[in-house]
Amino acid sequence: MVSDTGEVLAVDVGGTKLAVGRVDHGGRVVRKLHVPTPRNVDAEGLWRTLLSLVESVVDDRPVAAVGVGCGGPMRWPAGEVSPLNIPAWRRFPLRRRLQERFPDLPVRVHNDAVCLAVGEHWRGAGAGVGGFLGMVVSTGVGGGVVVDGRVVDGLTGNAGHVGHVVVDPHGPPCACGGSGCLEAIASGPAVAAWAQREGWHTAGEVSGRAVAEDAARGHPVAIAALTRSGQALGVAIASVVHLLEIEAVAVGGGLSQAGPLLFGPMQEAFRRHARMPFARDCRIVPAALGQDAGLVGAAALVLAGDRYWSGN
Amino acid sequence: MVSDTGEVLAVDVGGTKLAVGRVDHGGRVVRKLHVPTPRNVDAEGLWRTLLSLVESVVDDRPVAAVGVGCGGPMRWPAGEVSPLNIPAWRRFPLRRRLQERFPDLPVRVHNDAVCLAVGEHWRGAGAGVGGFLGMVVSTGVGGGVVVDGRVVDGLTGNAGHVGHVVVDPHGPPCACGGSGCLEAIASGPAVAAWAQREGWHTAGEVSGRAVAEDAARGHPVAIAALTRSGQALGVAIASVVHLLEIEAVAVGGGLSQAGPLLFGPMQEAFRRHARMPFARDCRIVPAALGQDAGLVGAAALVLAGDRYWSGN
Repeated sequence: MVSDTGEVLAVDVGGTKLAVGRVDHGGRVVRKLHVPTPRNVDAEGLWRTLLSLVESVVDDRPVAAVGVGCGGPMRWPAGEVSPLNIPAWRRFPLRRRLQERFPDLPVRVHNDAVCLAVGEHWRGAGAGVGGFLGMVVSTGVGGGVVVDGRVVDGLTGNAGHVGHVVVDPHGPPCACGGSGCLEAIASGPAVAAWAQREGWHTAGEVSGRAVAEDAARGHPVAIAALTRSGQALGVAIASVVHLLEIEAVAVGGGLSQAGPLLFGPMQEAFRRHARMPFARDCRIVPAALGQDAGLVGAAALVLAGDRYWSGN
Repeated sequence: MVSDTGEVLAVDVGGTKLAVGRVDHGGRVVRKLHVPTPRNVDAEGLWRTLLSLVESVVDDRPVAAVGVGCGGPMRWPAGEVSPLNIPAWRRFPLRRRLQERFPDLPVRVHNDAVCLAVGEHWRGAGAGVGGFLGMVVSTGVGGGVVVDGRVVDGLTGNAGHVGHVVVDPHGPPCACGGSGCLEAIASGPAVAAWAQREGWHTAGEVSGRAVAEDAARGHPVAIAALTRSGQALGVAIASVVHLLEIEAVAVGGGLSQAGPLLFGPMQEAFRRHARMPFARDCRIVPAALGQDAGLVGAAALVLAGDRYWSGN
């Protein structure tokens, strides 16, 4: 469906930014544009912003297919999106709109966290591995699962919700309605909220990033907050590895920039809980593709659809 | 490889009993023999017992293939087994021995808990479902995972260790070396040990079964012990459903015979933690095949190998 030499259009729709790029068959982002996600616009205004980015990227030569990552939830594979962090779009028919613009091309839309995981598996930290977990630790905690070298979608595209693995049944309430979920403990906002309760103050924005910055400066409560997040991540990873014999885990997203202050406790908790030989051998590494992972994964939906797309 | 009408030899090697049967293409057990697993024998003595059962089942007419479920751990797909509950076999070359006996037939060996899950997916409570979790709650807690209609093996056949999903990071130590694993809280021995600590006494054997019997008679500590086990099962199931968008879960094994006293708290904990619509819809049901699930699943390794066998 996609020629060996054709570049594809990749789109990454997030609550913070809209990114659009051309990705070649090797997974290289050969051209990229991005803008902050507009606020105070309606559904059509946001669509027009996205479409103008798209037109800028396809104006010089055609693309062979279109792959899109977008914040969830969504109806999948229909690609009707209601991103939690983009109130302007509720049941917005993103896949259909792009299909109308590119009537002769395959257009595929998936969850942005799944795309990040797919990108890391296709061309990043998980390349060549059969069982892989890609995680995004940011405003939320999301991810994608690869088994036998193929992404797991689930019946309605909702597989990969690793942020809702329960890490402490007596833990704090979660936005999903449950409690003790990984996301409720390990996400940026959860880290910041916990740090505040424990006496951390900031003159600026209350965020996981601010906590990480103070932790890097040696603030003990900020360090403890990242430790708590990392431990929860390590516990959840141990559970997933036991369940699926995952061979490699890549952790990305804003909070992962905290580096060893997060990865140290994560690795330590993982080692404490994952003691059987097959589990112990799992590698946990930072995501490798950085800002491009979402675009690369969106491109993989169409460039390597045999492994990364089971929808229609 | 297997003719449409050929029956296959199915073997189920457990710490309690050895079962051998003929299974037809539809998954029906058409002949079955079983004996208690011999104690105080050496590796060859145990093999001779198993082989004589096998010969009895294949003496009247040939079989088309051989499928085997055996307690783990094992080297997979080599089928060199070291069942935790069968000390006589350490690195016993079970697959090779059976291959030598049936040199012209496919012989496949997998973990017994995976076979139970496969049996339930092929012909039991999970039939027709894309995403499925089969669990065995007994002396240990084991299971198997089906994704997109195919069993998940993992690189060395160790996927399915749902008993080592962490349900409470501050929980009791587990035989695996970790702590807070589902198995350390929900298994029969864990239930009995907890009940004893809380003041439950029995004149007979200290076991999950004895606790279940007393719970059925209204003993409050026994009921509380089953409730604790059921809640841990419900939490672990919620985690797995979130991760993989599992559509149905079947729970079997000795302790599952406790019925509503276990399933009630399990369902309740699951509902409390699985609140997102895609997760809420998951069915949790008792395993449907009873004592035959292991043989049926072992047969499926060869009769439906496209879905249930990825080894060589």
